[in-house]
Amino acid sequence: MNIALDVMGGDHGPGEIIAGAVEAARAYKITISLVGKPDLIQAELLKHNTAGLKLPVVAATQVIEMEDKPANAVRAKPDSSMVVASKMVHNHEAQAFVTAGNTGGALAAGIFQVGRIPGILRPALISPFPTHRGFCVILDIGANADVRPEHLQQFAIMGSIYAKHVMGVNNPTVRILSNGEEEGKGNQTVIGAYNVLAATPGINFKGNVESKEIVEGGVDVVVTDGFTGNIFIKTAEATAKLMQRVMVEELTAGPISSMGAFLAQAALRRVRARMDDSQYGGAVLLGLNGMVVVAHGRSRANAICHAIRVAKQGIEQNLVGKIGEVVKSASSPVMGQIDDSALSTVAT
Amino acid sequence: MNIALDVMGGDHGPGEIIAGAVEAARAYKITISLVGKPDLIQAELLKHNTAGLKLPVVAATQVIEMEDKPANAVRAKPDSSMVVASKMVHNHEAQAFVTAGNTGGALAAGIFQVGRIPGILRPALISPFPTHRGFCVILDIGANADVRPEHLQQFAIMGSIYAKHVMGVNNPTVRILSNGEEEGKGNQTVIGAYNVLAATPGINFKGNVESKEIVEGGVDVVVTDGFTGNIFIKTAEATAKLMQRVMVEELTAGPISSMGAFLAQAALRRVRARMDDSQYGGAVLLGLNGMVVVAHGRSRANAICHAIRVAKQGIEQNLVGKIGEVVKSASSPVMGQIDDSALSTVAT
Repeated sequence: MNIALDVMGGDHGPGEIIAGAVEAARAYKITISLVGKPDLIQAELLKHNTAGLKLPVVAATQVIEMEDKPANAVRAKPDSSMVVASKMVHNHEAQAFVTAGNTGGALAAGIFQVGRIPGILRPALISPFPTHRGFCVILDIGANADVRPEHLQQFAIMGSIYAKHVMGVNNPTVRILSNGEEEGKGNQTVIGAYNVLAATPGINFKGNVESKEIVEGGVDVVVTDGFTGNIFIKTAEATAKLMQRVMVEELTAGPISSMGAFLAQAALRRVRARMDDSQYGGAVLLGLNGMVVVAHGRSRANAICHAIRVAKQGIEQNLVGKIGEVVKSASSPVMGQIDDSALSTVAT
Repeated sequence: MNIALDVMGGDHGPGEIIAGAVEAARAYKITISLVGKPDLIQAELLKHNTAGLKLPVVAATQVIEMEDKPANAVRAKPDSSMVVASKMVHNHEAQAFVTAGNTGGALAAGIFQVGRIPGILRPALISPFPTHRGFCVILDIGANADVRPEHLQQFAIMGSIYAKHVMGVNNPTVRILSNGEEEGKGNQTVIGAYNVLAATPGINFKGNVESKEIVEGGVDVVVTDGFTGNIFIKTAEATAKLMQRVMVEELTAGPISSMGAFLAQAALRRVRARMDDSQYGGAVLLGLNGMVVVAHGRSRANAICHAIRVAKQGIEQNLVGKIGEVVKSASSPVMGQIDDSALSTVAT
């Protein structure tokens, strides 16, 4: 197994990324190709004991920066670490591409370079989401701003496979994010997808879901378009952060503010630990001919190690193969009825 | 001035609604028509000193229940308090319709009975939204699940007028809820609306906005479709409630849990007071030939009094007339270019 790691991405620089790679190479005994500027990588590797570890260096002279326009950057920087790493997956030199860099760039590199699984209409970005009872997964959170019901159907299939084989959830429940639980609630895409998902074999579809039930932990896989999904997770994250701040403001505003501050600190640490999704390694771009893991830009070495573990787990579980099989079998009876034109475009 | 109040809606029964009406009639010295079952209303009125107050009773024998399907209910229950109250606005017997009942029913009664302002393509539901710095307004939060750019343009115009004349914000900033701040981010509707709003005279358009900046208080009017807007406010509300619960759980889990519980109670009270939007009277359905105020189902007497105040303020500020004027003048140069067919449909 070979995992291609973009060492040039991430808010904390190559030092953290390479430290995570060393940690993962030691823990999982796999090959991790370090893709980036060789001198920089060698300098970082000298800081670690890498005896016996498989950490080949793959040269890439360019970097896709956070401020680069994704699609352009992938075209304009063919020797960037993201493009080189994702091409390794395309060429079967690696089975996974892991990055903590520019998310748009990672999506573009993944979609354009790695290539889609035959039958997949649209790759989707899946992310763990913290709830009161643990974590669910939600997709799409940003790869597709506009979707059709048949795309949501494939998201449901891919999300179910991911929840089962990577998150370890048995018979995961699938629901569509909507503005009401009842059948018939939603925009035209949601209403159209409801019947399609209800008729899709092999998924445990339970209808629409509203935000309240998601945060309570009432569903395993949330299916939505990338526009709504992105706004959903950003709204939850922004509100959670604001509420923490407001609670601290109010706890330290009372008559015994020093005690409030002391208790707030300890409580906040525990709250953040409960919401910490670094063990899930970030988001995964599903539907491609290889694992593409998009870790948080803020990832430290440990989170990078987890991202590599997610990639490894996906490879071991043959996630790509499983998605390919199910999509193939689900396509003929159900999806063929919905949009033959879209399917035939993909099939050709 | 006559405000038609549906006394049959709301989670707490007619007692709270009528108490709110008595409070408002006394405070604002206006006529409030109490629409509902006469014997029930008379019994409640006996509990108050109503000497000198203008609280005529208008009989309605039916009630649209929370579990009723909105559009059906409005047709099937022509003598329901919602339909009777909204018809009073249609017939110019009242200038506003206020309810705390079934939101879908209120929308249907408003849209079908009160009637649209000429030139308005789609009425939209606007709601105050608590931020770190105060309140902004967001529309649409649920009247239109699917919209086109020209609808968002009218939402921007109506929202600006509302923010200025009801919320008292001078030259309110308007932004489109999106999955990225940069121009070009968003789904097709958002991308299409960006240029339309940028070219619309009389609004202070500042581009796209993400959830984080909204909750920080960085915008006065947030424009979005009713599907996304509904999910946005429900996600923020659900997350805020969950975070309060989790903070309390963690504050009372520490070694000095009784002190934590004591401080948490006081802090929570202050947090909730900061987020309390009852003074804003709930949501308003804009674009109709009269004020339609949809108060929270959970409204107590005081919140009902505020909802009536919002209706009164809208009437005094001639909100309907102002929206009509601006839409008329904005329609010809800007909107005519976008969708002549939609406009001509409305104009006929």
